[in-house]
Amino acid sequence: MKKPENQAQKTYHHGNLRDALLQTARALLEERGPSFLSLREIARRVGVSAPAAYHHFPNLEAIALGLAEQGASELSAALSAAANGDKTGELASGEAYVNFAIQNPALYRLMFGEGLSQSSRASGATAKLRQYFLKFMDEKTAAGFSLDAAKNQALFLWSLTHGLSLLMIDQQINPEDGTTNQIHEILKLAGHGISPDPD
Amino acid sequence: MKKPENQAQKTYHHGNLRDALLQTARALLEERGPSFLSLREIARRVGVSAPAAYHHFPNLEAIALGLAEQGASELSAALSAAANGDKTGELASGEAYVNFAIQNPALYRLMFGEGLSQSSRASGATAKLRQYFLKFMDEKTAAGFSLDAAKNQALFLWSLTHGLSLLMIDQQINPEDGTTNQIHEILKLAGHGISPDPD
Repeated sequence: MKKPENQAQKTYHHGNLRDALLQTARALLEERGPSFLSLREIARRVGVSAPAAYHHFPNLEAIALGLAEQGASELSAALSAAANGDKTGELASGEAYVNFAIQNPALYRLMFGEGLSQSSRASGATAKLRQYFLKFMDEKTAAGFSLDAAKNQALFLWSLTHGLSLLMIDQQINPEDGTTNQIHEILKLAGHGISPDPD
Repeated sequence: MKKPENQAQKTYHHGNLRDALLQTARALLEERGPSFLSLREIARRVGVSAPAAYHHFPNLEAIALGLAEQGASELSAALSAAANGDKTGELASGEAYVNFAIQNPALYRLMFGEGLSQSSRASGATAKLRQYFLKFMDEKTAAGFSLDAAKNQALFLWSLTHGLSLLMIDQQINPEDGTTNQIHEILKLAGHGISPDPD
């Protein structure tokens, strides 16, 4: 249902409009995919003029950066909330990571997939997310691992959670195989690896 | 350099033209990305009329399916060649998987990424690739693991190699960190996992 133009011009405080534009962009991204992201459409849905939207986000790249920052901030918070410092904390963080990706598939792809990775890398919030991995490496080196070994462990965990996330988002894994319990069991293998014999 | 039309009409045997179209489509895919795949452009590059190309591939979906089959066939052969039945064979297969993805980034994305996964699933050669995972599961159940445990191990390995492949293709991992040796060290962690203490 298209709003009549005279009803569409709303008044927002500066920060509120920015938030409203981002929220709408995010909904549009998940609903239609990245190729349907358009500042004009976002402005229309929020109910402001296109120039008002351009004032906050001069182009799509700026919107993408804003979304990537928002996503990285949320993911970072979810990881920290799940972690509790012990070994089960690491597993819980892995599950939180995959669940974030499953719940925000288009945003997740925008954050770490092709195309907009430049935005993602430039984002301050993504830097905060990388802090999470650096903290993991610090703990490993403090436990006596070399810096290289710690880095490889961090990349191992990121590869595993990133790959599982994308296989599930892309439905390469049968959804009935992707239950919460199975995600748990798959990620748990990161702890002791694939042993040649059953426990 | 555009060929003049009279020079562009070449003669091909049936199978040869199909192969030539696929080969050109694959080069175009890696060169320009999936959004530039066009049957008209592929025909032009091969030097045949568009209807001659349509005879083999009625639409882009058919070309994508052909490419996915070719890729799955090559990947399957690379995995089998690398595997030698022992534990180092599994690691070598993992490295062969990641190397295939790095060498054929656009094709790899087409095979397992978003968009064309339907083609990928429908492909007979992809089924052959899945056989590789089923064989792995058979070996695990023969060794005494439950079917669920074997499946989770297979998905664990696929997630890890898929994730590492994409992080490298998308340059989320610093290329200087993505040396052959580091790929080896990261994948090796699948064997014994992330132990709390150094060896």
